[in-house]
Amino acid sequence: MALRGPVLRLLRTHLSSCQQSRAQSVAVLGAPFSRGQRRRGVEHGPKVIRDAGLIERLSGFDYSVHDFGDLDFHHFEKDEPYMDVKSPRNVGAANKMLSGAVSRAVGAGHTLVMLGGDHSLAIGSVGGHAQQSPDLCLIWVDAHADINTPMTSPSGNLHGLPVAFMLKELQDKMPDIPGFSWMKPFLSSRDLVYIGLRDVDPGEYHILKNLGIQYFTMRDIDRLGIQRVMEVTFDHLLARKQRPIHLSFDIDAFDPSLAPATGTPVNGGLTYREGIYITEEIHNTGLLSAMDLVEVNPMLGASREAVEATASLAVDVIASSLGQTREGAHPSIDVNSAVKDDTEQLRL
Amino acid sequence: MALRGPVLRLLRTHLSSCQQSRAQSVAVLGAPFSRGQRRRGVEHGPKVIRDAGLIERLSGFDYSVHDFGDLDFHHFEKDEPYMDVKSPRNVGAANKMLSGAVSRAVGAGHTLVMLGGDHSLAIGSVGGHAQQSPDLCLIWVDAHADINTPMTSPSGNLHGLPVAFMLKELQDKMPDIPGFSWMKPFLSSRDLVYIGLRDVDPGEYHILKNLGIQYFTMRDIDRLGIQRVMEVTFDHLLARKQRPIHLSFDIDAFDPSLAPATGTPVNGGLTYREGIYITEEIHNTGLLSAMDLVEVNPMLGASREAVEATASLAVDVIASSLGQTREGAHPSIDVNSAVKDDTEQLRL
Amino acid sequence: MALRGPVLRLLRTHLSSCQQSRAQSVAVLGAPFSRGQRRRGVEHGPKVIRDAGLIERLSGFDYSVHDFGDLDFHHFEKDEPYMDVKSPRNVGAANKMLSGAVSRAVGAGHTLVMLGGDHSLAIGSVGGHAQQSPDLCLIWVDAHADINTPMTSPSGNLHGLPVAFMLKELQDKMPDIPGFSWMKPFLSSRDLVYIGLRDVDPGEYHILKNLGIQYFTMRDIDRLGIQRVMEVTFDHLLARKQRPIHLSFDIDAFDPSLAPATGTPVNGGLTYREGIYITEEIHNTGLLSAMDLVEVNPMLGASREAVEATASLAVDVIASSLGQTREGAHPSIDVNSAVKDDTEQLRL
Repeated sequence: MALRGPVLRLLRTHLSSCQQSRAQSVAVLGAPFSRGQRRRGVEHGPKVIRDAGLIERLSGFDYSVHDFGDLDFHHFEKDEPYMDVKSPRNVGAANKMLSGAVSRAVGAGHTLVMLGGDHSLAIGSVGGHAQQSPDLCLIWVDAHADINTPMTSPSGNLHGLPVAFMLKELQDKMPDIPGFSWMKPFLSSRDLVYIGLRDVDPGEYHILKNLGIQYFTMRDIDRLGIQRVMEVTFDHLLARKQRPIHLSFDIDAFDPSLAPATGTPVNGGLTYREGIYITEEIHNTGLLSAMDLVEVNPMLGASREAVEATASLAVDVIASSLGQTREGAHPSIDVNSAVKDDTEQLRL
Repeated sequence: MALRGPVLRLLRTHLSSCQQSRAQSVAVLGAPFSRGQRRRGVEHGPKVIRDAGLIERLSGFDYSVHDFGDLDFHHFEKDEPYMDVKSPRNVGAANKMLSGAVSRAVGAGHTLVMLGGDHSLAIGSVGGHAQQSPDLCLIWVDAHADINTPMTSPSGNLHGLPVAFMLKELQDKMPDIPGFSWMKPFLSSRDLVYIGLRDVDPGEYHILKNLGIQYFTMRDIDRLGIQRVMEVTFDHLLARKQRPIHLSFDIDAFDPSLAPATGTPVNGGLTYREGIYITEEIHNTGLLSAMDLVEVNPMLGASREAVEATASLAVDVIASSLGQTREGAHPSIDVNSAVKDDTEQLRL
Repeated sequence: MALRGPVLRLLRTHLSSCQQSRAQSVAVLGAPFSRGQRRRGVEHGPKVIRDAGLIERLSGFDYSVHDFGDLDFHHFEKDEPYMDVKSPRNVGAANKMLSGAVSRAVGAGHTLVMLGGDHSLAIGSVGGHAQQSPDLCLIWVDAHADINTPMTSPSGNLHGLPVAFMLKELQDKMPDIPGFSWMKPFLSSRDLVYIGLRDVDPGEYHILKNLGIQYFTMRDIDRLGIQRVMEVTFDHLLARKQRPIHLSFDIDAFDPSLAPATGTPVNGGLTYREGIYITEEIHNTGLLSAMDLVEVNPMLGASREAVEATASLAVDVIASSLGQTREGAHPSIDVNSAVKDDTEQLRL
């Protein structure tokens, strides 16, 4: 399901035709990309999440679902590290392409679901969303803060740096990394909340504290409970004004017993119920405008069951973000053939 | 351990002889029945729960334990669906027999433990209990509401309908289904509380809302905590007056990681500790009069360990309902040979 | 890494040389002993916990780490039971040796980490600590109360009795058991708090109630939440005055799904996050002076993964007790070669 030039044009045309349908239309976009970290396999995330039944699960709701297939990223063979930062040109170009696609999808009124791929893709996903909604706020659900700069990163893997690219306050800490000249910071640190942190690098801890970023570690969830965490999150982001939410959900926020097929699992993560509670609450705001589901890596599960459980969990997170409830308040089923049509088009 | 005609008479005699022993005597009754749903194997539930050591576990307490073996249900070969409802005559007849046995056991002063079998058996179990205790209240612990009518049921499996048979408020929604002419509704919707719901059909959701039934989904448990859920449950059912409790516990209320050997598992279920907390609290009311433990299906576990874990969990739920505590307040051990006597009789 | 006569002298010398370094120096001491219970294998606990990376994990913090290897316990072939109490002379002698080593380590200013071995070792570990800090308080994290006397013990295994040896209030309940003439009770029952109980013997329940000991069963944790449990714990032990804490952590406090490789697992235990929360809170008091990590038995896991998970959990508990946080407030790394030096010495 690669998305090539003529298909991109088709996509563009299609998107502009449904400009008026915000919140009634969901766009699914795959980003099969893994060069933001060193473990191959995460580029197959979009495929296994779809294979776990994503589109079918979403099609029972009162919005139409448009699957735009996968982006087709160009690969640069020659991509020397910059300082210790690995694959900067590949990561930069992939995010540039993703940014454009997300911007068009959101601009066309879709609620966007980006399937990663590694978490470096949030640079393009949140960035593209921000082009359309400069006042968006960002909820980052993750075991890791992903806010290293090239100077603080212990690994040089770009999936540990995306938030640093976004934040205006870190602009002077970010050198001119090859591949990223197309973008500039677009988010204020007060417009970001982290949930689920439990493996924060020393440099990241300094940044979080210095910028006064609102974050909830697993310890905070233990202390406050997930309900209170969500209340404070919304107070922080939405009290002054209602505005679009970007949810960037790393599957490794969950406990490794639930999401084993991922690259950097950390013990003591979210329970299934906490993860679903987070997404139910976000859905209930009525403000979710785009989301990422990243870091599902089918080559890392110990068994087929482990991979399927992880992919199925990703489907549950997305469905819950988009309105599936545990209470059973099923909206009327919208018989919409758009799902099939889009994928047909993309296969031309 | 089939319970045939002469044994039923023996049972009847025995039961009337211990009329005075309420709350000091527990009757265990197996109901090896699976025709309320489509997956065979759940009829072996009573056997695997006993094999997991149920009777031994219960015999350390200050009540006597009487194991009356398994009911021996007649099978009707000719049992055409009614509307979409499958096996109505078999389910109806099994519940009629069960209803009589439960009524006699409760009438004789036993606290009854019914081992299913599928959850359609609650029609007879709660119904028989209600014959003796018309003012009973019902606590239904389950992932599902089991309150479909023949019109709303997506599957036509009767284990998804039992509560609809019981409720007076749904009488005009229930057609004359073959096999059920012996019974009529006996419960008011205000005398029922659900705990653990997370997979509610659209028609069920309408019924729950229209009748104003008190229910707690897993999301409610996430929000309120299990302690508060139990407080509200007892406020709702017992505030006006103390009265007998019927606990109908579907093993699929637990998370599938704990209870894998069951027919309709749903992710995000009760933890072990929540399940035990529920039953401890019910025991502490001093009002438990009868309970069902249903839907353990030994043919569905992925391994022997999975089946044993599920059956062992069922034993823990029953033992906790009947007074086993985590604190260790063990009552004095009652050296009571009744356990062996009863099973001996039933083997004649 | 056996610790023999000349090495003990070396240890003694070393310890006295770092007298001034309390809270800046951690001593790790293995106690490979299993005769306090009947299942062999727990004597390999120190090895698997070290193999899981304990020393490396501790060496990133701002204290120095000194691994003093394992004690070398003498084995008495002739060790008849006393009443029903098994292996009294072996358990007594091992604890005498351990008591001396712990006393010296604490006296020399180390924060002591004792790696068991079975929980009977707490007699010597807490006892040796109390020689240096007579006003210590004890937090006992365990599925079991381990407070049987020889009269109440169902099994006669000494790992079920250690707390009874410690308590002044039980002195008249404890006969003169061979092997224990070197010690006398040193702790008041008000200076002890239990966390995690869920399998308490009838005699133990009586003792807990009669002495008014503060304890939290899993049910109490369900009711109060782990945060409140820790608040009440510290109120009880530290409200009148700040004083040294001894943490005695039995790995079976955790749920068997997390810590399968242990001798007496009980369902419904602590979650990973609750266990880490307990130790974070204890660290945050700044008063932890010594701790035990016991009952990791590598011969009991169903697989290599089960053993490694259990040992890795033990490492997490110890690291968290000593200051590793989920928030990422990593203290500056202290480049300290003492770790290697000590182990080198002990290998002479």
